[in-house]
Amino acid sequence: MRSFTFYERFSRAYHDYPSLSKLLVLFTVSGGGLVAYAEANPTNGAYAISSSESESKKKKVVVLGTGWAGTSFLKNLKDPSYEVQVVSPRNYFAFTPLLPSVTCGTVEARSIVEPIRNIVRKKNVDVRFSEAECYKIDAENKKIYCRSAQDQNLNGIEEFIVDYDYLVIAIGARVNTFNTPGVEENCHFLKEVEDAQKIRRTVIDCFEKASLPTISDEERKRILHFAIVGGGPTGVEFAAELHDFVNEDLVKLYPGVKDLVKITLLEAGDHILNMFDKRITAFAEGKFKRDGINVKTGSMVVKVAGKEISTKEMKSGQISTMPYGMAVWSTGIGTRPVIMDFMKQIGQANRRVLATDEWLRVEGCDNVYALGDCATINQRKVMEDISAIFGKADKDNSGTLTFKEFQEVIDDICERYPQVELYLKKMQMSDITDLLKESTGDVAKESIELNIEEFKSALSRVDSQMKNLPATAQVAAQQGNYLANCFNRMEECEKYPEGPLRFRGTGRHRFRPFRYKHLGQFAPLGGEQTAAQLPGDWVSIGHSSQWLWYSVYASKQVSWRNRALVISDWGRRFIFGRDSSGI
Amino acid sequence: MRSFTFYERFSRAYHDYPSLSKLLVLFTVSGGGLVAYAEANPTNGAYAISSSESESKKKKVVVLGTGWAGTSFLKNLKDPSYEVQVVSPRNYFAFTPLLPSVTCGTVEARSIVEPIRNIVRKKNVDVRFSEAECYKIDAENKKIYCRSAQDQNLNGIEEFIVDYDYLVIAIGARVNTFNTPGVEENCHFLKEVEDAQKIRRTVIDCFEKASLPTISDEERKRILHFAIVGGGPTGVEFAAELHDFVNEDLVKLYPGVKDLVKITLLEAGDHILNMFDKRITAFAEGKFKRDGINVKTGSMVVKVAGKEISTKEMKSGQISTMPYGMAVWSTGIGTRPVIMDFMKQIGQANRRVLATDEWLRVEGCDNVYALGDCATINQRKVMEDISAIFGKADKDNSGTLTFKEFQEVIDDICERYPQVELYLKKMQMSDITDLLKESTGDVAKESIELNIEEFKSALSRVDSQMKNLPATAQVAAQQGNYLANCFNRMEECEKYPEGPLRFRGTGRHRFRPFRYKHLGQFAPLGGEQTAAQLPGDWVSIGHSSQWLWYSVYASKQVSWRNRALVISDWGRRFIFGRDSSGI
Repeated sequence: MRSFTFYERFSRAYHDYPSLSKLLVLFTVSGGGLVAYAEANPTNGAYAISSSESESKKKKVVVLGTGWAGTSFLKNLKDPSYEVQVVSPRNYFAFTPLLPSVTCGTVEARSIVEPIRNIVRKKNVDVRFSEAECYKIDAENKKIYCRSAQDQNLNGIEEFIVDYDYLVIAIGARVNTFNTPGVEENCHFLKEVEDAQKIRRTVIDCFEKASLPTISDEERKRILHFAIVGGGPTGVEFAAELHDFVNEDLVKLYPGVKDLVKITLLEAGDHILNMFDKRITAFAEGKFKRDGINVKTGSMVVKVAGKEISTKEMKSGQISTMPYGMAVWSTGIGTRPVIMDFMKQIGQANRRVLATDEWLRVEGCDNVYALGDCATINQRKVMEDISAIFGKADKDNSGTLTFKEFQEVIDDICERYPQVELYLKKMQMSDITDLLKESTGDVAKESIELNIEEFKSALSRVDSQMKNLPATAQVAAQQGNYLANCFNRMEECEKYPEGPLRFRGTGRHRFRPFRYKHLGQFAPLGGEQTAAQLPGDWVSIGHSSQWLWYSVYASKQVSWRNRALVISDWGRRFIFGRDSSGI
Repeated sequence: MRSFTFYERFSRAYHDYPSLSKLLVLFTVSGGGLVAYAEANPTNGAYAISSSESESKKKKVVVLGTGWAGTSFLKNLKDPSYEVQVVSPRNYFAFTPLLPSVTCGTVEARSIVEPIRNIVRKKNVDVRFSEAECYKIDAENKKIYCRSAQDQNLNGIEEFIVDYDYLVIAIGARVNTFNTPGVEENCHFLKEVEDAQKIRRTVIDCFEKASLPTISDEERKRILHFAIVGGGPTGVEFAAELHDFVNEDLVKLYPGVKDLVKITLLEAGDHILNMFDKRITAFAEGKFKRDGINVKTGSMVVKVAGKEISTKEMKSGQISTMPYGMAVWSTGIGTRPVIMDFMKQIGQANRRVLATDEWLRVEGCDNVYALGDCATINQRKVMEDISAIFGKADKDNSGTLTFKEFQEVIDDICERYPQVELYLKKMQMSDITDLLKESTGDVAKESIELNIEEFKSALSRVDSQMKNLPATAQVAAQQGNYLANCFNRMEECEKYPEGPLRFRGTGRHRFRPFRYKHLGQFAPLGGEQTAAQLPGDWVSIGHSSQWLWYSVYASKQVSWRNRALVISDWGRRFIFGRDSSGI
């Protein structure tokens, strides 16, 4: 009775009084102690404070998507003068970098998702969520068309239209099969939580099927051949996870078939992990070789039949086939149909992906922003604007640019055109004036004076350093954060613009353009080893990076709930191994 | 680096040396400390010890099903002289009493399942598992026909035949819709783990659908009307869980629709929980009324359409309809088709369920056992055997039974016919001789002497106490345990039979007949309150029973892994609430 009373009081106190806002949760996991404080959720719902009077004046922001970009935007939006409507077919945010772990049960699917309503309900911004898919954007009339697809018991499809003042498109990308025949029908993908759950079931199904008494040995081998297409971080991590799952857990339960398992990683390029440092690539290839994972580079998948994959050797052009039991397609991202349609409307029909400017505004369309995997920033070339820059810098209209005049616009140029800085860095120049010296010869700074042709020639090569940002969670999250900060300070920056000079216009840009800060990238390779490429080309490989990986991924979770669950999943895996029941 | 070394050593030591068989796992959950010792799993696989030489001599036991009965049998089978083949479409055991908790995410699906291969691999009995469904039993040739249904990628259906020396049928029951139209198409069931997961997704879907902007209020009300058919323990527990889920978690996330939620519990009988004590029924009905759960008793569902349920008032015969959003059918169990077919083969075609004798042997069929929900024990009536009993007891063939003669067979009668004891208990008789006195009048024990007619009349009413066992996990588990013990001691008991006298044959029965020991039953009613009916008609209702429920359900888990997961799920729910993402 005593324990009940304690429990009841504690529970009530916890749920009723937000002032008891910290609760000590103690996890004693795998030797190391970790103390996590869980924030209590005060229940002052956002809905309560939005009176209908103030609502009418509020600007309506519609956010499409609840992935990294959309969620990061929502989390960081703080200005209560917006009325936000979120539309997404998934009512949760998923921590996608852990999806490969979900495929083998190292982490549970539910541990890496957080309901979007939970994320936004603590905010003082009025946020509403609709579980639906946007199937058409009408930028002219500032409307989006949405459709909810539910199961038949709820009476099928429901359509509705939402108006907006600002539209934030963050719906991500879809898988790109490059029109390879049979991929859609026969391959698993690894983009959504459901994909990972399906892969997990299929892996177990393969083992169960191979254990049936009447199957021939050849057929067993086929069934237990796991083919992974794409040697990027996802494919490599999945291959490593699968290898660990088989060798640490399944061998004990399926002793009769363990020797028949084969994992093949197919990559069209010359190396796996080719976006990483060469040392990492070499280590990964070596480790996979030792682990018995069959890495086939320079081999492009041209067809996937029900039981066979056909590949083409990139060098010889020779086509060969191999039987497989399960295939995972983890390469290529494509544009979603709704974006394709939208691009046609706004005159971007000839582009491959939706283009935005450096402020994440969709080109050719007012008040529409796009971020994350569904868009790329179409960086402005210095050479396109070279005359305008020269004109702006040449304040006295003398037709030549002195060092002093140039110095005044240096910062603006660097901020507006990030490629300039990248070029300087690549050329190991300490200063932008070093660039000019290439045209003027080695003179004293103060005596530099250039005409427009000399100026053009000095900056002619900087545009070679323009790079598209990678389609990663990190980019999307930073873009969401950036855009939310712009929205938070819209009014303030309207009055006091903080961006660089408008070279082709007057005044300054309201905001600084988006700048990506690369914080490093991990490639878990299995066996408690991870390769990490950190800023400054710092490379770390091995067990210590695995611990770094654990800490970073735990700390990046969107809520304390996720953090606790993911950490306890890791602990549980260590103690009990991974679960192999087929659900 | 230091922590890594510790981790690695610990991990290796743990995985490699079974002698390190205890590992301390510390959970500090919700104020109370709970220390659980996790057993390490020594990896001496069962497969390793079964030499092909000894295999040929082994008797082949085929077990169908991995539910409570089958798993309990497998766990308790210890005699290594059997070769066991398990056939089941599910490669895991599920702790079904927690299924209602899974529907609302109080407990995760994966926490209550344990792979059957994991359960059997620590045994020294040779057990093999095939993930397949038995679709035909050929008792004449001692063969079963199996079919594996996998997804298309694994090339469809695979069929095979398994021979047996002993067959243990434990495939459970299927849902019985009583041929009510529309139930199959429109209702959710709550028998399998997948059902519970589907219900969970549908509940969230209903809330999301009701939150869409264009839905009318009337439609919102319909969508948020949850109808539960069947006022048994499962239906009641689900209603209570759903009520808690809505009121503790969902109201915060769906503030706009919370007032439209309605939960209706439909029961054809006069009361819910009618297998429980009246005090429990009354408390449950009162609590549900206070909670706002709409309990409609005496109301039978006659049709389930896509959006409407039709019910018939049992008293007035009046038919009425009500709109609903989600319906859960949790009443009635039916016989599986493979059992129906088997019953036809063995001359039980006119019975409703498969009949076994008190030793769980299928009637009319050698070496086939059936246990759990797929069979019922067809208890032998005393009156059917009355002449045989009299003949056996009347050792001197005098035509009358003296007290002394009777005393010698009393124990055997009571053991063979459990209804005798139940009758004595009901009539508050202390002794079986009290029964005889009804015929002979109140004479001294020693002078009792009965002829056959008097004996018949004395025992004529005992058969009224015959009861079918309920279709519960408890019965199934006890039957599995009982049968495994019979198998373990088959040879020993062949030589030294321990059962009661064979009244219609010679000698004694090999084994004591199965006797069910009722350990009590729980009915969780939500809000941390549970009703418990314990042996000896002891009734406990309220918060303290909830704690009893927690302890019993935690202790009954099939593995330490399950125990740790279920307890941590409870702790997590208390700290973070239930998850409401739609996956």
